[in-house]
Amino acid sequence: MLEQALIYAKEQYDAKLAQLIEWLSIPSISTLPEHQPAMQRAADWLVTYLRGIGMAHVEHIATPGHPVVYAEWQAADPAAPTLLIYGHYDVQPVDPLAEWRTPPFEPTIVGENIFARGASDDKGQIFALLAGLEAYLATAGRLPINVKVLVEGEEEISSPHLAPLIAERKAQLACDAVLIADHPLLAPGVPLVLIGVRGNCYMEVEVRGPASDLHSGTFGGAVENPLNVLVRLLASLQDSERRVTIPGFYDSVRPVSEAERALLARVPITEAAAMALSGAPALAGERGYSLAERLSVRPTFEVHGIYGGFTGAGKKTVIPAFGRAKIGMRLVPDQQPEQIAALVEAHLRRLAPPTVSLSVQVLGTSRAAVIDPAAPTIQATIPAYKAAFGAEPVLMRGGGSLPIVPDLQELLGAPIVMIGFGLPDDNLHAPNEKLNLDHFRRGMVMAIQYYAELLRL
Amino acid sequence: MLEQALIYAKEQYDAKLAQLIEWLSIPSISTLPEHQPAMQRAADWLVTYLRGIGMAHVEHIATPGHPVVYAEWQAADPAAPTLLIYGHYDVQPVDPLAEWRTPPFEPTIVGENIFARGASDDKGQIFALLAGLEAYLATAGRLPINVKVLVEGEEEISSPHLAPLIAERKAQLACDAVLIADHPLLAPGVPLVLIGVRGNCYMEVEVRGPASDLHSGTFGGAVENPLNVLVRLLASLQDSERRVTIPGFYDSVRPVSEAERALLARVPITEAAAMALSGAPALAGERGYSLAERLSVRPTFEVHGIYGGFTGAGKKTVIPAFGRAKIGMRLVPDQQPEQIAALVEAHLRRLAPPTVSLSVQVLGTSRAAVIDPAAPTIQATIPAYKAAFGAEPVLMRGGGSLPIVPDLQELLGAPIVMIGFGLPDDNLHAPNEKLNLDHFRRGMVMAIQYYAELLRL
Repeated sequence: MLEQALIYAKEQYDAKLAQLIEWLSIPSISTLPEHQPAMQRAADWLVTYLRGIGMAHVEHIATPGHPVVYAEWQAADPAAPTLLIYGHYDVQPVDPLAEWRTPPFEPTIVGENIFARGASDDKGQIFALLAGLEAYLATAGRLPINVKVLVEGEEEISSPHLAPLIAERKAQLACDAVLIADHPLLAPGVPLVLIGVRGNCYMEVEVRGPASDLHSGTFGGAVENPLNVLVRLLASLQDSERRVTIPGFYDSVRPVSEAERALLARVPITEAAAMALSGAPALAGERGYSLAERLSVRPTFEVHGIYGGFTGAGKKTVIPAFGRAKIGMRLVPDQQPEQIAALVEAHLRRLAPPTVSLSVQVLGTSRAAVIDPAAPTIQATIPAYKAAFGAEPVLMRGGGSLPIVPDLQELLGAPIVMIGFGLPDDNLHAPNEKLNLDHFRRGMVMAIQYYAELLRL
Repeated sequence: MLEQALIYAKEQYDAKLAQLIEWLSIPSISTLPEHQPAMQRAADWLVTYLRGIGMAHVEHIATPGHPVVYAEWQAADPAAPTLLIYGHYDVQPVDPLAEWRTPPFEPTIVGENIFARGASDDKGQIFALLAGLEAYLATAGRLPINVKVLVEGEEEISSPHLAPLIAERKAQLACDAVLIADHPLLAPGVPLVLIGVRGNCYMEVEVRGPASDLHSGTFGGAVENPLNVLVRLLASLQDSERRVTIPGFYDSVRPVSEAERALLARVPITEAAAMALSGAPALAGERGYSLAERLSVRPTFEVHGIYGGFTGAGKKTVIPAFGRAKIGMRLVPDQQPEQIAALVEAHLRRLAPPTVSLSVQVLGTSRAAVIDPAAPTIQATIPAYKAAFGAEPVLMRGGGSLPIVPDLQELLGAPIVMIGFGLPDDNLHAPNEKLNLDHFRRGMVMAIQYYAELLRL
């Protein structure tokens, strides 16, 4: 049945691409209220598609936000493994629109790529997984395993309604693994399976001094400058060797096993590639850790934004009334975001002089998660990638944060299998998002292979 | 002749106020090109006024920028002292216009004050000095001393064409003192004569890292964050006791004499008043120096503005491409602004890691100046203030910077006598600028008295 499915995918490639183009044409930007009708259309499109390929129990689930699309297929064999496929149909906004070379919602094929908002993140990738189901249903009339499909419309706005929904439908969603295709390959020819995500603790720090901006000639020397204090406070959070200097910050960092360090040592991430991708004059990072380690298993501290005083052209000699910064820390197991936020706040309050008032706010948190690479459902990605991309995947933790990963892991108690078919230069969240068409094709093949692999477990 | 002049000023007060209102109605904003015609009108108004009161050689001097108005009056006695009266007819912009309670160029009397842009800075104050001349010319037909008047139209844009003009006309402008009325009293009832100005060194610092903003999940730990570096660099310039930590910064600070420290100890500046004026939760400043010392004879370091990364509402996890700050140092004799700028740049370059590129720019400099309080032309302000305001003035160096002060001092070799009649809450450079009408009246009296005092030298 695998062979027939693969042949179907090959023969139906043009038809599948045409369907993807249809879906990509719907501007499902979840964060913009005026796109509400498009959100409904994008969800309905998916309902129609899933019904069309023969999935059972296709459901349009209303939430207090954008709808979730759900579908199931029960294998004849009750002992067959159950896979929950998760994805999202919502996309990022398109600003700055002027930088797009083709309209973001008029999918355009240029050379080897299709350009459209959502091409890679995540419509193109989730559609490859679903087209893999279609290939079995159309040829064998059945799937090799039990499958549940859950596609939400709020991933780009932090999935506010997903965890409650999963908690409510815990029994219905029970599974042996959750499959997500929402990240790029590590590099062309190097597939990547993420066996973890970093957590995040995002905060805003505000230092207030005088009631309004003051003239630095009149008051300079008498009144505390909130920006002088702000830079001193922020500088106290990290040293010049990029060690975070918040007392207690590293206390709950779970040591990385020798096995994982050995795996990381073999990850083909090169300084040259990171420099080329980032355009930085030189790389930087915590001393004593390799590039792959710094990007995956080590926590970080970043000043994401800072603002205060006079920022126009020329000069204005003010002592500003306030200064404000956004800071964020990527966290690793077992750092708890709320606890880290408390450490940061306590540290800043200890250092802040009584000449200013300090306000510290937590804007968002997300937990870290790590997945056992030995889990059979993770190991099953290896032959599947080999068959589809001709290469074994690198297994490493990802550097980003995806709150649904710890949520799904905790609520469903199943390993999260994070795969992906895009490329690092797919311009996610940026103008000219694209998906390589060959990767789209291989993505369908990988999905078909993976479903078959799961049956062998 | 003093008595008659004083009586004239009293009797003509309403007429003088009406004339001031006329002048204040002309929107002479030097920095806005569209106000060019108003600049000409404001200069012409002054030419007409000076001719009308009987000044000789009234000249409208064209410059590459806005015109300068010049006038002279020679006393019969060639041994009489010569006073050069300096002022400016240009004003600051009026934004934010919405915050004005009355239109900025429709002078409006509300209670004890006249509200208008330029009421205090500087039309109202320079006009009081000129009306003092008128009082003598109208009653005695002559002035007690030689007088030269120089009123420019570019003070609010850093006087770019004044120093060359003075250098060119050095012989014509030769004088025994320069009188400037362009600052407020220290407090109601406490006149202030400034015997110095601080210098200023204004710089912009930019730290650049990656070619564009990067995702902190993807690159966090591998790429230097320019804002992390920027705050570290800026924090290295001052310690928590507000000592500037730039190596060599204090090397050329001229020690303050015991006599001046004793004078400063008697200055009636209170912490309570400074807190009330600034609205700061507590005062701050370099340890080991009194409030009056910190505000006048000590240099400072300020971060005037800072900008970089994501500053909108909510959160965005970026490693920004760059961060930028404006910094400024108030300087005291004998700190040379160019040398201080070099020290700052050298220090920052020493600390900046090779993972970023650093750019350091000098946006403007201004030298410090100090005037001997024992100069007879300075001492002559004491009885004049006593007569006009019923109180002796405080003699102290000012905390602000006025590049024309060191320029005039150097080019003309004469003491600069900085007096003023406004109040600390006159809203200079801010909405609702005002001048207290009683102070305007006393300003004319003070001028009349001062001209008479000079004759006694």
